[in-house]
Amino acid sequence: MLETIDLDKDVSKAAFQSEFPPLQQRVFELQRELRDARIPLLVLLEGWAGAGKGEAVATLAERLDPRGFKVHALFPPTPDDQARPFLWRYWMRLPERGRLAFFHRSWYWHILDAPAEKAVSSDAVAAATREIVEFERMLVRDGLVLVKLWYHLSAKEQRRRLKKMRADPFERWRVGSEAKSQRKRHERYLAAAEAMLAETDTTEVPWTIVEATDRQFRLLKTFKTVVDAMQRAVDTGAPAAPARAPRASIAVAALKAQPTLLDRVDLRRRADERKYARDLPALQIRLRELQFLTHAAGIPTVVVYEGWDAAGKGGNIRRVTELLDPRGFTVVPVAKPEGDEAVHHYLWRFWRHMPRAGFLTIFDRSWYGRVLVERVEGFATDDEWRRAYQEIREFERSLTRFGTVVVKFWLHISPDEQLRRFEERQETPYKRYKITDEDWRNREKMEVYRPAVVDMLRETSTREAPWTIVEAEDKRWARLRTLRVLCERMEQALAERSGDGSVRTKAGKKKHNKKKGKRRGRDRR
Amino acid sequence: MLETIDLDKDVSKAAFQSEFPPLQQRVFELQRELRDARIPLLVLLEGWAGAGKGEAVATLAERLDPRGFKVHALFPPTPDDQARPFLWRYWMRLPERGRLAFFHRSWYWHILDAPAEKAVSSDAVAAATREIVEFERMLVRDGLVLVKLWYHLSAKEQRRRLKKMRADPFERWRVGSEAKSQRKRHERYLAAAEAMLAETDTTEVPWTIVEATDRQFRLLKTFKTVVDAMQRAVDTGAPAAPARAPRASIAVAALKAQPTLLDRVDLRRRADERKYARDLPALQIRLRELQFLTHAAGIPTVVVYEGWDAAGKGGNIRRVTELLDPRGFTVVPVAKPEGDEAVHHYLWRFWRHMPRAGFLTIFDRSWYGRVLVERVEGFATDDEWRRAYQEIREFERSLTRFGTVVVKFWLHISPDEQLRRFEERQETPYKRYKITDEDWRNREKMEVYRPAVVDMLRETSTREAPWTIVEAEDKRWARLRTLRVLCERMEQALAERSGDGSVRTKAGKKKHNKKKGKRRGRDRR
Repeated sequence: MLETIDLDKDVSKAAFQSEFPPLQQRVFELQRELRDARIPLLVLLEGWAGAGKGEAVATLAERLDPRGFKVHALFPPTPDDQARPFLWRYWMRLPERGRLAFFHRSWYWHILDAPAEKAVSSDAVAAATREIVEFERMLVRDGLVLVKLWYHLSAKEQRRRLKKMRADPFERWRVGSEAKSQRKRHERYLAAAEAMLAETDTTEVPWTIVEATDRQFRLLKTFKTVVDAMQRAVDTGAPAAPARAPRASIAVAALKAQPTLLDRVDLRRRADERKYARDLPALQIRLRELQFLTHAAGIPTVVVYEGWDAAGKGGNIRRVTELLDPRGFTVVPVAKPEGDEAVHHYLWRFWRHMPRAGFLTIFDRSWYGRVLVERVEGFATDDEWRRAYQEIREFERSLTRFGTVVVKFWLHISPDEQLRRFEERQETPYKRYKITDEDWRNREKMEVYRPAVVDMLRETSTREAPWTIVEAEDKRWARLRTLRVLCERMEQALAERSGDGSVRTKAGKKKHNKKKGKRRGRDRR
Repeated sequence: MLETIDLDKDVSKAAFQSEFPPLQQRVFELQRELRDARIPLLVLLEGWAGAGKGEAVATLAERLDPRGFKVHALFPPTPDDQARPFLWRYWMRLPERGRLAFFHRSWYWHILDAPAEKAVSSDAVAAATREIVEFERMLVRDGLVLVKLWYHLSAKEQRRRLKKMRADPFERWRVGSEAKSQRKRHERYLAAAEAMLAETDTTEVPWTIVEATDRQFRLLKTFKTVVDAMQRAVDTGAPAAPARAPRASIAVAALKAQPTLLDRVDLRRRADERKYARDLPALQIRLRELQFLTHAAGIPTVVVYEGWDAAGKGGNIRRVTELLDPRGFTVVPVAKPEGDEAVHHYLWRFWRHMPRAGFLTIFDRSWYGRVLVERVEGFATDDEWRRAYQEIREFERSLTRFGTVVVKFWLHISPDEQLRRFEERQETPYKRYKITDEDWRNREKMEVYRPAVVDMLRETSTREAPWTIVEAEDKRWARLRTLRVLCERMEQALAERSGDGSVRTKAGKKKHNKKKGKRRGRDRR
């Protein structure tokens, strides 16, 4: 494909001088129109070293309001980037609504440079390609305008340019190791580029090839492509404003009648005090050791807590973390998005908190808000929450593919138990802060939330990231259960990592050291 | 001092068992009280390797609500940290209002480990010490509760412990290179610790020495110290809520009468079109080359734009950045703090955007909002904005000491010119978005803003970070002036860096290449 491109395309000076200035002016005007419509734009520039990507970015940026855009020169991933799923660094740089970003190099590094330099398996490239396609589709559906430009040069022309740049002391620093690699491994780069372009040129997010031999031609084509995309976005209008009407008017009676998987949860499960006093510290110590082992193995863990109000999430999380080394975990309480969080894709704020390899992050409520509260309260449109199931599955697969252990708990209680706990909170002075008018309002909507919960559990329970419905009518039972599931999942990940299917914790080795258990682990130093 | 500490302090098991649990419960309760009072707490743990810092953090964290605290294990600075002033990494980890943070190692690394390993000059240590004292004072005045703990051990006891830890496969990983260094250079570490403790034990932020030989003793002392500090904070109450009454009632007539330095600004300065067309591109090209040179030299630049509404900040910034390589600069528009920004010290959000070595950041409005809009509108208390002058001087010195070029522009126009521009904006369709009701309201307050501006210019113009008052009645003049000042300041920094007092830009070398100037630099690739 790349070899058939006509690299001799050029444009006369006169044509350039008449066409270019209006385009530059138009980009400037469209910047404001996008801002007012709160539409984000991302232009990513890929292509051969020396093909003029840097100049194109600079020229695009030249007349723009510099307060409204950011340029990211994305060099190969740093160790910090590598400690997280590969899309993390790009998520962190996505433009806010109404703002522009230019990526000089992008996520395509992972399926172009990486395989060209033979650093990764073809399976890994295929998986990364798939993630990229899904990622881009998700962003554009959310309203991002994404322009992908490939600057193409012949090998001969590239050599000529790089030579010239190296001879100029003010240009020399721009010639990076990338250029060197491409020269040395030209055939491999070409093959990787062909494959990359073929597989990521989708209807929703197509590539634009910029024939880069002639400077004026490539600038004109760059600007035309960007202006067209911006104009189209403005004409189509911003993504539909979310419908804000709550959906509490659904025929609740009809919903009640249907038995769902939630009705099959056995809420009679109980742990008596003796069992709890014995098992809790043992499980906590086991988990602490698994924390060390996963830290050593570089395995990150993500735990999601969802559940009915007053289902005991807070106390449960506290029992899970109690004996952990606090340097290795973080608990992220999730509330309504504000500030930075409110001007990005709904998954952005969770990506932000993704644990580094070897660390543990617990989300107290999570991205599932999209298909729970946002669906029920109408903060997300029908289309938005419906496609969120797939987006969430893909998101979690990005994590698990990186090796993250993803554990999801739904803490389930009966409406009666919830009422009992609400009343208890209201009556106990030091618990009163936990209960608000909103909790009572949500309680009234329990029947409307129910189908949303059922859909969520059904749609997003995957083999790699399954839901665990925790019978939480009895808090002690629920705590033992979450601890046990978490331990098992981490053990499984360690076993898969080591390959021999077995994990030996210190506690296990010592056949459950009772004395240690009783001291509840406070003997570390 | 350290040698006189009684390291044999211990506590009986019975005493521990009766005293400890209530303390642990109290920390838990106080966590909630601090949260409700929106008071942030930071406990930093320093001391000998193996003295029990990790255990102390873990025990403190054990019973807390994990959703309300974060533990930061601060290893030696990474290359990313080193590309910014040393306090940056600590700023980024400060707890939000109402939340807790534990720093396992802290900014004291820079005046303890660094000098002990002879990596820095004693001048640098003295300067860093001073910055630390200022930094801590600023934080506690803002309402942060800061507890500094030094865990002390004898060299002999340390050796014994580390040996034991290394023998245990589950503890071995905790013994870091720090322990090794301390063992090898014990005397040097001891001397550095003595000096550090002596110089940073201030009335406002004292050290607590924790005699760390006996486990129970050190845990009790840790908890008592933390509980006392938290209790004191709760008793004293949160920092006074800012007075929200605008101060527009000041006797404006009296203020008008006094001539100030603003009255001496010569607003008749003008640049004619010919001069502008000639000088602007020349200065822009010079600046672009300085961008490359400072990038190569690793010198960061911070530019602050302040000025009256409609003084032309946006257009001025655009002329400054027009020909720069956009991969090397960022423009940060500053508005009312929201989300994350609103729950931190007012300087936090600016630290967040500090450029890496070699990069340029332009702030369109800045931390000076504290002594301008926040003072005038009453968003900051009298005490807060008054002490901000010193805080800002210290903040900017942190930057300049790191080698940052700090350039500050006050764009000055007359009230008549402002009125003319407001009216023009109102009449020009594509400029109308720039003018809001608030602008008109602010205009009415111009006479109240005036003394705030005068105080700001007088109080915060330092030798390292002087203000430039830009005569902005004529936009062309103002643009040439800011560009010229910026170029001069960057050249000066380069000259100081290279030591020979001269900088050679390409443009200079070529004696102002006219052709290049006319093409306005679009010939880069």
